[in-house]
Amino acid sequence: MPQSWEELAADKRARLAKTIPDEWKVQTLPAEDSVIDFPKKSGILSEAELKITEASAADLVSKLAAGELTSVEVTLAFCKRAAIAQQLTNCAHEFFPDAALAQARELDEYYAKHKRPVGPLHGLPISLKDQLRVKGYETSMGYISWLNKYDEGDSVLTTMLRKAGAVFYVKTSVPQTLMVCETVNNIIGRTVNPRNKNWSCGGSSGGEGAIVGIRGGVIGVGTDIGGSIRVPAAFNFLYGLRPSHGRLPYAKMANSMEGQETVHSVVGPITHSVEDLRLFTKSVLGQEPWKYDSKVIPMPWRQSESDIIASKIKNGGLNIGYYNFDGNVLPHPPILRGVETTVAALAKAGHTVTPWTPYKHDFGHDLISHIYAADGSADVMRDISASGEPAIPNIKDLLNPNIKAVNMNELWDTHLQKWNYQMEYLEKWREAEEKAGKELDAIIAPITPTAAVRHDQFRYYGYASVINLLDFTSVVVPVTFADKNIDKKNESFKAVSELDALVQEEYDPEAYHGAPVAVQVIGRRLSEERTLAIAEEVGKLLGNVVTP
Amino acid sequence: MPQSWEELAADKRARLAKTIPDEWKVQTLPAEDSVIDFPKKSGILSEAELKITEASAADLVSKLAAGELTSVEVTLAFCKRAAIAQQLTNCAHEFFPDAALAQARELDEYYAKHKRPVGPLHGLPISLKDQLRVKGYETSMGYISWLNKYDEGDSVLTTMLRKAGAVFYVKTSVPQTLMVCETVNNIIGRTVNPRNKNWSCGGSSGGEGAIVGIRGGVIGVGTDIGGSIRVPAAFNFLYGLRPSHGRLPYAKMANSMEGQETVHSVVGPITHSVEDLRLFTKSVLGQEPWKYDSKVIPMPWRQSESDIIASKIKNGGLNIGYYNFDGNVLPHPPILRGVETTVAALAKAGHTVTPWTPYKHDFGHDLISHIYAADGSADVMRDISASGEPAIPNIKDLLNPNIKAVNMNELWDTHLQKWNYQMEYLEKWREAEEKAGKELDAIIAPITPTAAVRHDQFRYYGYASVINLLDFTSVVVPVTFADKNIDKKNESFKAVSELDALVQEEYDPEAYHGAPVAVQVIGRRLSEERTLAIAEEVGKLLGNVVTP
Repeated sequence: MPQSWEELAADKRARLAKTIPDEWKVQTLPAEDSVIDFPKKSGILSEAELKITEASAADLVSKLAAGELTSVEVTLAFCKRAAIAQQLTNCAHEFFPDAALAQARELDEYYAKHKRPVGPLHGLPISLKDQLRVKGYETSMGYISWLNKYDEGDSVLTTMLRKAGAVFYVKTSVPQTLMVCETVNNIIGRTVNPRNKNWSCGGSSGGEGAIVGIRGGVIGVGTDIGGSIRVPAAFNFLYGLRPSHGRLPYAKMANSMEGQETVHSVVGPITHSVEDLRLFTKSVLGQEPWKYDSKVIPMPWRQSESDIIASKIKNGGLNIGYYNFDGNVLPHPPILRGVETTVAALAKAGHTVTPWTPYKHDFGHDLISHIYAADGSADVMRDISASGEPAIPNIKDLLNPNIKAVNMNELWDTHLQKWNYQMEYLEKWREAEEKAGKELDAIIAPITPTAAVRHDQFRYYGYASVINLLDFTSVVVPVTFADKNIDKKNESFKAVSELDALVQEEYDPEAYHGAPVAVQVIGRRLSEERTLAIAEEVGKLLGNVVTP
Repeated sequence: MPQSWEELAADKRARLAKTIPDEWKVQTLPAEDSVIDFPKKSGILSEAELKITEASAADLVSKLAAGELTSVEVTLAFCKRAAIAQQLTNCAHEFFPDAALAQARELDEYYAKHKRPVGPLHGLPISLKDQLRVKGYETSMGYISWLNKYDEGDSVLTTMLRKAGAVFYVKTSVPQTLMVCETVNNIIGRTVNPRNKNWSCGGSSGGEGAIVGIRGGVIGVGTDIGGSIRVPAAFNFLYGLRPSHGRLPYAKMANSMEGQETVHSVVGPITHSVEDLRLFTKSVLGQEPWKYDSKVIPMPWRQSESDIIASKIKNGGLNIGYYNFDGNVLPHPPILRGVETTVAALAKAGHTVTPWTPYKHDFGHDLISHIYAADGSADVMRDISASGEPAIPNIKDLLNPNIKAVNMNELWDTHLQKWNYQMEYLEKWREAEEKAGKELDAIIAPITPTAAVRHDQFRYYGYASVINLLDFTSVVVPVTFADKNIDKKNESFKAVSELDALVQEEYDPEAYHGAPVAVQVIGRRLSEERTLAIAEEVGKLLGNVVTP
């Protein structure tokens, strides 16, 4: 007898619950809103395990490569902490510590035999968003109709990471459809922010944001077609890299609207430092992913590009543009202060900072929103309806019945509009350079109008999505935390639209107190090396290296 | 009173005829089928002008940069020879010698004043396919409905070439729609092959093939979505580079099906040597086109990639695959001999040559043909119908009324099929490398089933178009000429399809005697530097440097 969608979901939850051994069970869930410090107090991790999970990935791979740590030690530590993360934040779709430990043992045996690591990520556990396929596991991606199907092979990125020596242990939660920036689905419900259960962990790579935020993972792999790497990074006080399309391999991953190529979703890392973003990126590029995924550009890590920024920082400084308002929706006071703080830190260090006028971001936001629904949402509706589950409330805009599918000639017109907009933006970039008489190295901007958002209040994607439309490289840098004593309600605010009014109306200094605030550092297309180096400098100037 | 399409076409022809000064007029058109040697005998060009037009572009820019030639001298020589080419082959849509000479004078003045060239192409005339926009001129692209519209700006590539110092003097003919490999439209009629008026010059960059073939131009700029650079290069005994998408700027060019992005048309040069293909490519990349056209990858010329091939050639040789039959349509005997000759020359020089099994080229050919008509040909029909002109006979396949437009979800499925096919092909490539224990550097293959084709007999695009679907870099190398004494009819031929039978049936040793035969050297995506270096080696081994 076929099961109802509720039964299928309950079965999945029960299977997931069983993956956590009794000795890793949290006996009494904390009553506090914030659980970020709970792992330290849980008694489940040893001192050594706490130390491992609070180290950087760069440090861990260095110790693993030197034989100072075994992969089993490191993997066990992260499995335990991930189990806690799961119980506190509900961040996993799949958890497979036994298989992870078996993989770790193999790597340790390899090391014992050959006295060298298999690759640059030898023995390091890496958490994967539930779009990446790992042979033998489910990729449900939050659709009930996709449950109980087990992957017969790896995604290309999984293969590259395996070759580099990574260990897999968890696949993390996403919202139904992936097309929203909070993480809710009908299988596991809602994933919450470890810093406050009343805030969203972001989305769509929300499980990654939560698990890396609470250090149940050290490098998380997310994807981004409209903010889905950057928003969870921002909401969890993490760094995140949205590379440009074609830099890292997306092939053989699951996706909503698979085959849609007008704006490509991209894959990238979420970490606690730029150093770890770089470690991930270099490790993947070192596997020559362009020989496996035809969409990847044969562009190895370009150290010379990184060095150009290092040299600029040393001699005379960077030239950075910035904006705090895209003309559509004014950010909340903590975000405005975040941009201001970042710009002030750059200026103080001698870098040139100049206001940037966002170019037609209203047009850009409209165009990409239109692209997301180019098929009249037939694809996502098919996968939702297949099980009879309802759509989550967050996607009501996407599933607007007034949105009709476009035909081929309309699509081609959309492509031309996109291309022209991208080129006009490049022209503005060149004009700024001509005016300054030097390169414009990056633009600092908000990534969302809010600090880590209160549930069901993520309303405006434009700060993120216009950058997707432009396919610029973007790195999220954590800046500060909302502070009710500084970030008062904006008394002089005048709304430019109903949405603008609604978003601003929802700012509550008390409710947002302590919420992470971030900016994004935006570089030209395929400028990963440079933009990472700039983000690293920004992070250093902000002194924001935070331990949990 | 609105003019009929016939009147509009006649008016354009009359305007075009007037652009040729009386002193450049050919008094008596040659009676011979071949006019390739006519410019030498015409009496219109001086000895010095003949020498200029028979030099390489590399030699010319070197002399221009050294002040040994002026741009006016060089431009005048090519304008004269282009005027002859136009009268003999009907290869131009626009011809503007006065403006070219004015541009040349300005460049000479710059040189006189600054004692240095403006850029790497200083003073060199370059011919442009009639898709590239040059401010002030018509881009009709063979559509009558597009006549009498004058471009208000340059295409990005035009801008890049201008900055590099190029001079513009002619825009060359294309077939109606661009979607066929012969050059016929209702404005100027047919462009013929300078080596034999009974053969096609190829298409869609057919005017470029003809004008560079007869040395009315030294570097021609073509485009290619299914063979349109490579076929004219092959049919005119020229070299042609089809770069991968994203390497050279296509922005702001006219196109059929503008905005179609499932398979991108690409732009590239047609020349008499690899050295000149390289000069063009390096000169354009030197202008940082990625700062103007958002689709261009920020990938400067990579000399190190070229050097890897040079080093392989020096030490131990290249590893080259080859095939002479794609499983769909068997080439004519001269083409089979062309592949054989090339492979033998490589083997003799010590390079490794191994048969390559074409992977699902039937599927690839079907898929890309389906992509070309994804809108049910609504776009091209609109531009044809706007004037009331009839469709040319060559495009009857494209305008098949049975082809229906696909919807968005079908398109996305097509995208997935394309991506998977590309990746399967990469897998075959990797397997070949694993088997050989070394890199597979390139694959040698036919580019068409025929030598320079007889009019209205171009029937099969698959040798070219599957490479577009794969987005591999491809360089055409001229090999030899059909020879009725060697290339007998294939007596053992057994057709695999009706089309295969028809194509083979049309082989006539007498009619094809002397027709150019070429191969393509296929490299991985974005392998321009390597593939050019391999093509150069192939050309050297064949000893095919030919003077007209």
